[in-house]
Amino acid sequence: MRPIAVYVGGSTLTSTIPGLSIAGPSPEGTLYTPTLDLEYLTLGLPRTMNVIPMTPDGLLTPALITRAALELTKVPYLAVDAGTYYGIKAPHVRLPSARYGENIAERPAMPRGTARSLFEEARTLGRLISRGHDLVLIGETIPGGTTVAAAIMNAAGLDGVGYVSSASPNNPKDLKRQVVSKALSRVSEGSDIFSIVDAVGDPVHVTMAGVALGAMEEGATAVLAGGTQMGAVLAILRGVGADTSKVSLWTTKWILNDETSNIRAIAEAFDVRDLEGSEVDFADSPFEGLRMFERGFVKEGVGAGGTMVLASKMGFDAGSVKSAIYSEYKRLRNLGSA
Amino acid sequence: MRPIAVYVGGSTLTSTIPGLSIAGPSPEGTLYTPTLDLEYLTLGLPRTMNVIPMTPDGLLTPALITRAALELTKVPYLAVDAGTYYGIKAPHVRLPSARYGENIAERPAMPRGTARSLFEEARTLGRLISRGHDLVLIGETIPGGTTVAAAIMNAAGLDGVGYVSSASPNNPKDLKRQVVSKALSRVSEGSDIFSIVDAVGDPVHVTMAGVALGAMEEGATAVLAGGTQMGAVLAILRGVGADTSKVSLWTTKWILNDETSNIRAIAEAFDVRDLEGSEVDFADSPFEGLRMFERGFVKEGVGAGGTMVLASKMGFDAGSVKSAIYSEYKRLRNLGSA
Repeated sequence: MRPIAVYVGGSTLTSTIPGLSIAGPSPEGTLYTPTLDLEYLTLGLPRTMNVIPMTPDGLLTPALITRAALELTKVPYLAVDAGTYYGIKAPHVRLPSARYGENIAERPAMPRGTARSLFEEARTLGRLISRGHDLVLIGETIPGGTTVAAAIMNAAGLDGVGYVSSASPNNPKDLKRQVVSKALSRVSEGSDIFSIVDAVGDPVHVTMAGVALGAMEEGATAVLAGGTQMGAVLAILRGVGADTSKVSLWTTKWILNDETSNIRAIAEAFDVRDLEGSEVDFADSPFEGLRMFERGFVKEGVGAGGTMVLASKMGFDAGSVKSAIYSEYKRLRNLGSA
Repeated sequence: MRPIAVYVGGSTLTSTIPGLSIAGPSPEGTLYTPTLDLEYLTLGLPRTMNVIPMTPDGLLTPALITRAALELTKVPYLAVDAGTYYGIKAPHVRLPSARYGENIAERPAMPRGTARSLFEEARTLGRLISRGHDLVLIGETIPGGTTVAAAIMNAAGLDGVGYVSSASPNNPKDLKRQVVSKALSRVSEGSDIFSIVDAVGDPVHVTMAGVALGAMEEGATAVLAGGTQMGAVLAILRGVGADTSKVSLWTTKWILNDETSNIRAIAEAFDVRDLEGSEVDFADSPFEGLRMFERGFVKEGVGAGGTMVLASKMGFDAGSVKSAIYSEYKRLRNLGSA
């Protein structure tokens, strides 16, 4: 197996709607999360602020899991800036059309044409990095991502809001439904997928779709490493005529087992190549920050589940992955950042 | 062999000194060259301006050779922006400290600390991309590069000006010597290598050195794909205590055979792992733009020589590389850009 991974970050101002996303210390604070996630993933420490992305409740970013798995497996990887609000102070891939998305409850996500430009740029990136590799794993970090993903899915004719999960155990479905409903009022019947993304989407999901298509065009397997948001990526791929039955969907067991969302329905709707969940379980973890994952917090993000599935397929058993995660947890705690 | 390649672009305002560099249509025009080179290399066409980088005499950028060899070999690659004057309108790796260099005849190249920051960022990049690869090839595009490289080498105690070549058959050595002499007046005795680069260097060579060290730290072979400028990269590597006898130096036969410069002396001074030159010869080419290479024009750039050497080591003979270059030449001519 010759894998390579990219982790696509971006912001949507939708995440600043109070109560929508807990992927940050405050509604406005969610705008820092992709920046800090990708700096930490790349450098081992965030740079823009001296904090590991976490919530007031002590919830850690799933990037901790991702980084631990990457250090264990030595899979090559790069962060991609599709439109972070605060940039990335670490080496990363820059897409020329990168820009953050607006609050879709209030106005169009991006200027007309942005989604198509991002898609084509990401497709080029996918082609370039796929050479010499047989698998391209694509993760994401975008607070508010399930809401914009639901809007994209709904606009594409699916039950997006019904499908999507939340980083909170109390999935704020009513609020999501309100936001999506406002957003959809801007989408006209029969819009093409790029118009939909410009109107009610964000920069991240369309970038992931572009990388996936580029990878498939070079003969590599495209793996979407994420939760229910991946339904939006699949909808974009279907919208451009790509064969979603060749795309893999790898996530966490917390998403597979989540009763407030339905990733299996998404996998079926797009007839994906395979739906897999990581086996790693933190029920017996000595660290409260990790045991919280078993109570429905966080669930997925920054490709955590998919990166663990990849480790498993590369021959690393769940115990060794867990050890790597514990070591990384302790490293951060000792740095005083976690 | 599991290679990956990066092509590092940046500008130095030194290239705008009249008569110093022919790597552009005019002294000011040289500032566009890295931008157009890397857009073309990545997308197959430049984007910022609708022209293939070339000189008034119809000299083509060596990026044409590089792209043809990459399309033939399917080696994965990425452009890196270390400080282009006009940015790169294609997916590329961005280093946070990227910035163009000032004219070293007049003022310090970069604010103090920039060289070290770029080096560390590039080192991280080198580590990340080397995973899963056994060879990292590193090319460059920086008009005026031989002059700033000579200044770095001289400041590091070598005969830089004596060693370096030129993209012109008439190597303007006197002018280079004047520029280097002015630059060196700003370097104090016993300066460390990063202070030297900040004072009389540029963003590109130090970035190449960082990628090379990162690659070696991950166990990959670092290949410097360039001409005599690579002496500056080797000087920086030696300056940080790296073992240059583990670094490969691959270039063109035009550089190996150039009587105005001395790449063999550079290879010896740093005891490099191997010095190799591509065998491809355009003497019998039907295209004047390529035959000019045999008359001492261009000689090297954008990793052209090293990428051809890599193709050869991957089992592609000189004939197939030449065919690929001819096809690419015709493609560009038919687009009306060449």
